[in-house]
Amino acid sequence: MDVSRRDVLELAVAGALVAAAAAAHFADATPVLSFAVAAVAIAALARLVGAATEQLGVRVGSSAAGVIQSGLGNLPELFIALFALREGLTRVVQSALVGSVIANSVLVLGIAFVAGGVRHGTQTFNSPRARMIATLTVLAAAILAVPTLAHAFHAPAAAHAKALSLICAGVLLALFFLTLPGFLAGGETAAPAPARWTLATTVVVLAATGVAAAFVSDWFVGALKPATHTLGMSEAFAGLVVVAIAGNAVENVVGVQLAARNRPDFAISVIMNSALQVALLLTPVLVFASLFFATALTLVFPTLLAISLLLAAGIGALVVYDGESTWEEGVILIGFYAVVAASFWWGA
Amino acid sequence: MDVSRRDVLELAVAGALVAAAAAAHFADATPVLSFAVAAVAIAALARLVGAATEQLGVRVGSSAAGVIQSGLGNLPELFIALFALREGLTRVVQSALVGSVIANSVLVLGIAFVAGGVRHGTQTFNSPRARMIATLTVLAAAILAVPTLAHAFHAPAAAHAKALSLICAGVLLALFFLTLPGFLAGGETAAPAPARWTLATTVVVLAATGVAAAFVSDWFVGALKPATHTLGMSEAFAGLVVVAIAGNAVENVVGVQLAARNRPDFAISVIMNSALQVALLLTPVLVFASLFFATALTLVFPTLLAISLLLAAGIGALVVYDGESTWEEGVILIGFYAVVAASFWWGA
Amino acid sequence: MDVSRRDVLELAVAGALVAAAAAAHFADATPVLSFAVAAVAIAALARLVGAATEQLGVRVGSSAAGVIQSGLGNLPELFIALFALREGLTRVVQSALVGSVIANSVLVLGIAFVAGGVRHGTQTFNSPRARMIATLTVLAAAILAVPTLAHAFHAPAAAHAKALSLICAGVLLALFFLTLPGFLAGGETAAPAPARWTLATTVVVLAATGVAAAFVSDWFVGALKPATHTLGMSEAFAGLVVVAIAGNAVENVVGVQLAARNRPDFAISVIMNSALQVALLLTPVLVFASLFFATALTLVFPTLLAISLLLAAGIGALVVYDGESTWEEGVILIGFYAVVAASFWWGA
Repeated sequence: MDVSRRDVLELAVAGALVAAAAAAHFADATPVLSFAVAAVAIAALARLVGAATEQLGVRVGSSAAGVIQSGLGNLPELFIALFALREGLTRVVQSALVGSVIANSVLVLGIAFVAGGVRHGTQTFNSPRARMIATLTVLAAAILAVPTLAHAFHAPAAAHAKALSLICAGVLLALFFLTLPGFLAGGETAAPAPARWTLATTVVVLAATGVAAAFVSDWFVGALKPATHTLGMSEAFAGLVVVAIAGNAVENVVGVQLAARNRPDFAISVIMNSALQVALLLTPVLVFASLFFATALTLVFPTLLAISLLLAAGIGALVVYDGESTWEEGVILIGFYAVVAASFWWGA
Repeated sequence: MDVSRRDVLELAVAGALVAAAAAAHFADATPVLSFAVAAVAIAALARLVGAATEQLGVRVGSSAAGVIQSGLGNLPELFIALFALREGLTRVVQSALVGSVIANSVLVLGIAFVAGGVRHGTQTFNSPRARMIATLTVLAAAILAVPTLAHAFHAPAAAHAKALSLICAGVLLALFFLTLPGFLAGGETAAPAPARWTLATTVVVLAATGVAAAFVSDWFVGALKPATHTLGMSEAFAGLVVVAIAGNAVENVVGVQLAARNRPDFAISVIMNSALQVALLLTPVLVFASLFFATALTLVFPTLLAISLLLAAGIGALVVYDGESTWEEGVILIGFYAVVAASFWWGA
Repeated sequence: MDVSRRDVLELAVAGALVAAAAAAHFADATPVLSFAVAAVAIAALARLVGAATEQLGVRVGSSAAGVIQSGLGNLPELFIALFALREGLTRVVQSALVGSVIANSVLVLGIAFVAGGVRHGTQTFNSPRARMIATLTVLAAAILAVPTLAHAFHAPAAAHAKALSLICAGVLLALFFLTLPGFLAGGETAAPAPARWTLATTVVVLAATGVAAAFVSDWFVGALKPATHTLGMSEAFAGLVVVAIAGNAVENVVGVQLAARNRPDFAISVIMNSALQVALLLTPVLVFASLFFATALTLVFPTLLAISLLLAAGIGALVVYDGESTWEEGVILIGFYAVVAASFWWGA
């Protein structure tokens, strides 16, 4: 039994959404509509990419699975960021990268706590793995913040923002490859389902969703600027909230479902791991990739963005170290995210 | 046995102090004397308000007790802040609010550790409730700090300080009402003494102390500016240290006594809970109340004040998570508070 | 058996290095060579001072041992700092002091985690003592950062930098003497080796190494400015990385060895304790000592330096509270240190 009825349904839904996004794009629909349809299509494609990489991971053994999942799992976000860089939307890319870490460390964790707490009361979690991932996220956030802090506080290094960003990106990427075997693969043992798809099916799905994701990302980025203008939101807000949430929709849903099923340790691992991969892999890859574009992507973020990143990572660690979650704690995490998001609503 | 001899004594002392404050005010005593007498009278009234709300709480059941205690327990601080706002002393109010959180998270915790450690050696505490309150205080402090950080780091939102402050205040107040049933009422079960006063006595004491607190607060605020001028301290220092400590004197004494009686978990809950109520209830109420005054109270604090708030809340959480206290740790907490206070001594 | 063959070898090596440093200094070798030889000689002398104070400590009983070890153990760093102050190299001294805390909290801890993790896999540690020292280091770092934060965020206290620095130094020194009996001596019980040297040998070695350390420190400081100029590094980098690592070489090697021998709790205590002593003792002593020099040493650091200090202390505490270390965590700590160091490479 290769492809199940549910798989077919998902493929059909994703296909329909891609078609709708194409229609909106080529029929010159209003930017807000094009933008919204493309965002939903990206989330559906991200889900398919996730399923296909999981199938591929089962075949190649758990040691290589981590590499594949990390690399391909972030494919939709990578496409969006590359197209946005091509358009010179550096601020959107920066906000989306930092926003992914903030959204996972605070908002998604908060929603997971509420979902888990409402059904199961106080949830306790104590896995060293969850604490370790939270610690690593704080460290990665601190590394990401250094060029911004150098700039904000007028350190001499501020005059060498590009060099310092490349050093940070190099260190982050080195850390990714060094720590990958131990950390990122370690958690996959919790999902040991056998391969359902044939290798051919997997490769075809992966190729098709990859190509579709590239196209839809292009349309999404094209509609982003006029849509945000229409809605009155700043580019920073669009990246921090809209792109970050659309790009991470799948991991987020999985994490919240795990919490609702009373598996808080695993939920936290999935949610924080998603943040960690953006920091250790996606961000440095984009910094290096931007060398081939007209405008370089540096790690000199708007200062408030870097400070919010540090606060969010620290709060995420605190909440994970706490060892207990309640829905009240979740509500306050969501409240903190709302305030951070609100502070980026206005444009310059 | 309704009102005990000790109750009568306390009422007499408070009455005498109010009379002394009135005499100092109307006889045009030196501002420093008026200020000092009013400060002591406020502490005595705060103690009576606390006792009366506790009696009321016993009668209405523990679910409503939390609401009443939170609301009325902060009455003296509320009066002081309202009169200070009327006088346009925004800086004093801001400093006093932030100072309450800092003083509880650092100074009072430090004194409690010393009081407990000197008598009982190393004290261990491990209640999830204490850790949870510390976590929530960090989150509330982070929310409170966002408008200041936006301002300090020149984010576009800095131009919308009032709107952002109202959003933060709204979120904080919503969080207060959402989390109240679970958290603030949860700790009162540790003090299940039966009602000693009749309802009539309780209401009369509450009304009388409330009216007296209003008058004394007025005199206190009137003497504040000339007194601080005479003493050479800045308005920020007056709010951060003098008003914050006078307004929270009672909770502080209770927390330190609990630590001295070797009940560290309960001591920490009481001390940190007091900080949390100022952040979640008193501060947003004053932000909204200030809409009816000539000068609005925003959450754009002096930057050092907001940074000190974040440091103090983070240190408080670290110390609570530590799970052990010694008098040495208490001494260093007090030292940190002294340095923070000293850095606000000088005026602009 | 008084002085062992190994002791003789160490004395000979140190003597040879001091001679080489003298030769380089008086023969006008290139500054980089003089600087490098002097740095190695200082590390060798620091090791001898450490051995001699340990022998002295065994004789005087563990209560006084702590005072002696703290005082004399930092002798080489003290000499370097004093000579640097005399030359007006305030920035180097500030960077070296803060750099000692950062290097211990992050770099040395990271190396220890790698050394321990590669040999013994995941190491768990749970001593309250390690957590306590980490907490105290965060508190000391926060106190040290206050004058810089006041300056960076334009608080009125910025105009009183010297007074505020003296207050902070006074508080830190008071905390050192108050907490010394409990904390610093407490850990020495783990090394209860009997005295190997006679008192006479100990005193002679101590006096000789002390005098040699004074001379070599002088040559080291003399070569520092031209050497860093030749190498293209900033004075801040020279202090933060070179001086900090050369001055703490011994404690660092001991800490890493302990981790490699699977004694993670003790390793962490040694490493963090070294950071704490710099903050609580060496720094305030130098602030007071600088009153006798032409240029005062204030605690107004370059802002990025103070922020890095806070981040490093917080990350150190997080990692210690985590309760588990792996070599991956060690690698990321080293990566964070590399990025911080890189951000200080460039001069103004």
